[in-house]
Amino acid sequence: MKKLMNEADRFVPDVLEGFGAAHADLVQVHGDPWFVTRRDRASGKVGLVSGGGTGHEPLHVGFVGHGMLDAAVPGPVFTSPTPDAIVAASRAADGGRGVVHVVKNYTGDVLNFETAAELLEDEGIAVRTVLVDDDVAVQGSTFTAGRRGVAGVVPVEKIAGAAAERGDGLDEVVAVAERVVGQVRTMGVALAAATVPHVGRPGFDLAEGEVEIGVGIHGEPGRRRGPLEPADALTGHLVEPLLQDLALGGDDEVLLLVNGMGGTPLSELYVVYRGARRHLEDAGVRVARSSVGNLVTSLDMQGASVTTLRLDPELMALWDAPVRTPALRW
Amino acid sequence: MKKLMNEADRFVPDVLEGFGAAHADLVQVHGDPWFVTRRDRASGKVGLVSGGGTGHEPLHVGFVGHGMLDAAVPGPVFTSPTPDAIVAASRAADGGRGVVHVVKNYTGDVLNFETAAELLEDEGIAVRTVLVDDDVAVQGSTFTAGRRGVAGVVPVEKIAGAAAERGDGLDEVVAVAERVVGQVRTMGVALAAATVPHVGRPGFDLAEGEVEIGVGIHGEPGRRRGPLEPADALTGHLVEPLLQDLALGGDDEVLLLVNGMGGTPLSELYVVYRGARRHLEDAGVRVARSSVGNLVTSLDMQGASVTTLRLDPELMALWDAPVRTPALRW
Repeated sequence: MKKLMNEADRFVPDVLEGFGAAHADLVQVHGDPWFVTRRDRASGKVGLVSGGGTGHEPLHVGFVGHGMLDAAVPGPVFTSPTPDAIVAASRAADGGRGVVHVVKNYTGDVLNFETAAELLEDEGIAVRTVLVDDDVAVQGSTFTAGRRGVAGVVPVEKIAGAAAERGDGLDEVVAVAERVVGQVRTMGVALAAATVPHVGRPGFDLAEGEVEIGVGIHGEPGRRRGPLEPADALTGHLVEPLLQDLALGGDDEVLLLVNGMGGTPLSELYVVYRGARRHLEDAGVRVARSSVGNLVTSLDMQGASVTTLRLDPELMALWDAPVRTPALRW
Repeated sequence: MKKLMNEADRFVPDVLEGFGAAHADLVQVHGDPWFVTRRDRASGKVGLVSGGGTGHEPLHVGFVGHGMLDAAVPGPVFTSPTPDAIVAASRAADGGRGVVHVVKNYTGDVLNFETAAELLEDEGIAVRTVLVDDDVAVQGSTFTAGRRGVAGVVPVEKIAGAAAERGDGLDEVVAVAERVVGQVRTMGVALAAATVPHVGRPGFDLAEGEVEIGVGIHGEPGRRRGPLEPADALTGHLVEPLLQDLALGGDDEVLLLVNGMGGTPLSELYVVYRGARRHLEDAGVRVARSSVGNLVTSLDMQGASVTTLRLDPELMALWDAPVRTPALRW
């Protein structure tokens, strides 16, 4: 294992301390339990909270700020945050109009956010949950019952965050977030596995010419292993299930998000973006908005995922709305 | 070699086509010769142009836009752009008040920008050159005579870009850029080498527990090889030469830029940032501004560099000035 880190036990605190110091103008990092809040919290808006295991940075902590999350709760590496941390973050995010939890569909996350929601309701804080399950690769896997939540969580948080920021109520924020969940799909590929600090060796082995198609963001197995084909062919395997699952076709406009898994440089992500875009355009789909970068990573995994979100004028306007977070800013 | 790419011959065009399509709202990519210009070009301002080999993305193409570069010229992988491409980009960037070339100190880049400057002067376009040589690791190396230009080029382009945007003349833009060059230093470390697409194997070998301290962004050797120490110790080796070379101490304020080499995830960069910041603070230096991310990469190299820029109120204001490019935006 070669990583820029201190002892494995200090990995999460070190990441969060560094993150908090680097972005002190935008966020505040709280310890014991760990959670992150935005500096310029607007009062009187619906609070938006998300969280999940560490190792997917900038997700979720990097999306805290104006126009996106009010708080994020990082757990240990690839492990759900505890209910008490979710409760503390949600209390901080509540401005009196309730809180929306954006939860990626993993058994541990679902359970802990559910427990936290019950505790919060007991305190009189209204909580609604939006479950993100955008991964078309598999219906069940190591960490999940049902589809996994992966990079599609980024447009969910961005668009729900913009809705909350403009003053939408609890039901309206949930409704727009669920519209995104219904229209967003993702498919990923790994070239090499991630290494969890405590484990010290890659989570799985791939041969030199081999890739895992449909991989999850914790290195969960995908649909199949196959040869490392040229990027244009490989992106075809990623785009095809998105076209089918969303029944995308003529006149559809999408956001195309090409996401790196952490160990893949931006140059390669642009090659993937080019290939994915051509496959979409060949199917008559118009790419109206784009995002390319390492947004939902899996530690140092080499690979990428392709996400499409079918847009309508409102979703497009909310995607375009100003955002000011450590990782997304416009 | 495991990369998301098509044939090696198509790597650069594929990257640039993907980049251009993803960021068509901000930039325009021109082919034959390849160069990138900003969409919202302001007339009547000094033009700012940079360039260099491909494989360092987002540098330089990702820094084209309002408040930073007017044009960027990407060469083949790790290879200088040709004079004709630099001439074409500079013509496009000239708004009648002349052009500043920001050149990283590599023999090929220096030569080709020099030739281009002569051709442009013959056409009546005034050209001034700012040479960036921020790498404290070595005085001469495979690609250079004298110090290499590495991640310090980012604050040079950002600050000179802000000066040009506010209407500074040719001499003023050059003067502020040279003030940055005089106050910015960088030191890097590699955990694993980059693989050039045409070559197909890593540029050098490092044993499992070994790092290259002072590595260049083309995988050029650094000061020494050493053991992979914990991040806090390793960042000490990176920060120490910066403190010495800039004679940093009490009352000094710096921009601290922690840059990833392409194959290192953001989580690890925050660990490095935390360590570097502590070393600086222990020396009495105040970190007034920060930037953490993969900005000046070396294909898929694993590693990071630490850059410090001694700030004064004007440099800080120019760093803070609005910027709207694919890779930097605030």
